[in-house]
Amino acid sequence: MKITFLGTGSGVPAKHRNVSSLALHIEDKEGSLWLFDCGEATQHQILHTSLKPRKIKKIFITHLHGDHIFGLPGLLSSRSFQGGDTPLTVYGPKGIKLYLETSLHVSMTHLNYPLVIEEFEEQGLQIELDNYIIESKKLVHGIPSFGYRIVQKDLPGALLMDKVKVHRIPSGPHLQMLKEGKVITLADGRNFDGKEFIGPPKRGKIITILGDTRYTDTSIELAQYADVLVHEATFGAKDELLAKEYFHSTTLQAAKVAKSAKATQLLLTHISARYQGEDVQVLLQEAMDVFPNSIVMKDFDVVEIK
Amino acid sequence: MKITFLGTGSGVPAKHRNVSSLALHIEDKEGSLWLFDCGEATQHQILHTSLKPRKIKKIFITHLHGDHIFGLPGLLSSRSFQGGDTPLTVYGPKGIKLYLETSLHVSMTHLNYPLVIEEFEEQGLQIELDNYIIESKKLVHGIPSFGYRIVQKDLPGALLMDKVKVHRIPSGPHLQMLKEGKVITLADGRNFDGKEFIGPPKRGKIITILGDTRYTDTSIELAQYADVLVHEATFGAKDELLAKEYFHSTTLQAAKVAKSAKATQLLLTHISARYQGEDVQVLLQEAMDVFPNSIVMKDFDVVEIK
Repeated sequence: MKITFLGTGSGVPAKHRNVSSLALHIEDKEGSLWLFDCGEATQHQILHTSLKPRKIKKIFITHLHGDHIFGLPGLLSSRSFQGGDTPLTVYGPKGIKLYLETSLHVSMTHLNYPLVIEEFEEQGLQIELDNYIIESKKLVHGIPSFGYRIVQKDLPGALLMDKVKVHRIPSGPHLQMLKEGKVITLADGRNFDGKEFIGPPKRGKIITILGDTRYTDTSIELAQYADVLVHEATFGAKDELLAKEYFHSTTLQAAKVAKSAKATQLLLTHISARYQGEDVQVLLQEAMDVFPNSIVMKDFDVVEIK
Repeated sequence: MKITFLGTGSGVPAKHRNVSSLALHIEDKEGSLWLFDCGEATQHQILHTSLKPRKIKKIFITHLHGDHIFGLPGLLSSRSFQGGDTPLTVYGPKGIKLYLETSLHVSMTHLNYPLVIEEFEEQGLQIELDNYIIESKKLVHGIPSFGYRIVQKDLPGALLMDKVKVHRIPSGPHLQMLKEGKVITLADGRNFDGKEFIGPPKRGKIITILGDTRYTDTSIELAQYADVLVHEATFGAKDELLAKEYFHSTTLQAAKVAKSAKATQLLLTHISARYQGEDVQVLLQEAMDVFPNSIVMKDFDVVEIK
C-alpha cells in the first residue's frame, strides 16, 4: 500500500501547497483508491498525477471545513464525465449529505454511477470493508472533526515449503489446498493437515489518518501501533498557544502522539503557508527530536507503507 | 477597462485550461474587480496573477452548472481569510442562494464582510451600479443560462482648451467649474457658460459576456454595438450538430453573432479540451473568416478594452 499526498496545506490554497486531500492506494485487484478529504482543486491536483478519478471507490471526510470538502462536488462530477461508472461511497460527519445533495442538485449534475453518502454522528464510524476494519473517533477541533484508523486484516501465512519437502509431499493441486489449511489425502494414503503447513499470519497494516485537532489522547488511541500516522502540524513547536487557540496541533504535539502510540512512521501535513523554504526543515527537526521517523509532507509526495 | 481570463475551458478542468471565470477590471478609484462565473479553483488561478480577492466587489453568475460555480464557496471564504472586509454581492439565477448558503453553513464558514446574494428569475437582471447599467437575458442552454450586457454610462466630454484660449480665460479653479458645465463670472465681469466649453461626451464602453448557449438571436441583442463580446465556442465549426445537441455554440456561430451585432471585438472562450495545440489555430481561423477581429482566449490572457 502507499499514500499519495494531494494537498498538504492548511486553510487556504497556496501556490505550492493545496488544501487537504490524500489518496490511499488499496492495491486490491482493481487498484482502488480511497480518498481522505477533498479540498478545492483536488481534481486539479490529480491531473498532475497518474491517478484516475474512476479508481476512487471511497472518500472519507474528516470534518466539514471548506478546505477539506469544497473539492468534492467537482471531483464527483468529473469522475462521471470521464467515464467513471462504478459505485462510490462518501463517508463523513453529519452535514456532508446536505452539502453534496444541494451542490449536485442546484448544479443539475447527473452522475453516471451510484453515489452513496454515509453520514456518521458524534460517536464516529465503525465499518468493515473487504479486508479492512475502519473506525473513526471524534478529535478536538472547532467543529466535529474525526480521525480514522484503518486496520487491514491479517494476511494468511505462507506455505512452509521446507516442511512440505521433509514429508516428501509431491507438487500438485493439493499444495494449494494445504495452503488454504485443508486436510489432504495423498494417493499413498497419507493424510496431512494444512494448518500444520502454514507459517504465522502476516500482520495487516494499520493506517491512522487524523483530521484537524488539538493534542488529544484520542489521537494516541487511534494511532496505537500504526504503521503510518498522518497527523496535522499546522504550527511549529513554538506556537503551541496559537495552535490551541485555533484548535490545531504543533509538530511537537504530533510527534508526542506518534511516540506515545508506538507508531512506526509519522507523516506531517496541513502545514501553514507561513512556513516556507528553510522553515520546513525546522518543523521537521522539531518532530524528529521526539520521533525520529517523521517526514513533513509536500504535495505529490508518495509514501510506501512497508 | 480590461478583462483577465481566469478559466477558458469547458466542462471539466484540464491542465492548461481551467473551468470558467473572468475578471472585469472596472478601474474605479478602488480598482474594483467584477468576476463573471467562478468555476472550481478560480481562487487558485488568481494566485498566479496580481489580482487581489479583496478587490472583487461583484460576482455575476451566468448559470448554475458546476464548472461555473463550484469555486464560489472557496473564493468567498479565502477573501475573508485574507482580510477582505468590504461588502460583496453575488448576482445569479435562482438556486445560487441555496447553493451558497448551504455550502457556507455546512462548512461553518464565517465571513468577515457582508455578503449579499441577489437572485434573478427567468426574465433576467436589470440594475444600475454607479456608472454602469447591467442587464441579463436568458439564452438557450440545458438549464437557464444568461448573458450579461454591461453598459458604461457616457463619460463627460473634455474641456475645449482651444476655446478657453480664444476667450483668454485665465487659469484657476473656475476652469474646473467650466468643465463641470457651470456658469462662471470672471473678475473682469465676463460670464461664460461651461456647457459651451465641453466637447461631446465620450461614449461609455459596452461589454457583453454570455453564458453557455446555442446560437440565438438574444445573443445578438445583448451584443449590439458591444466593444467586446465574450462568447463561448465549445466546438469547432464542423461540430455544429454536437454543439446543438449539448446546447453549446461553434466558433462560426459566435462569429456570426459578433458580426450581426456589429460588435467591435470577439473573445472566444469555453474551449473544449479536445482542441489542443494547432487545433486552436483552426478554431481562430473559422471565427476570423466571418469576423476578423476575433481572439481565442487562453487562461491568464488580459485584453484591454479600447
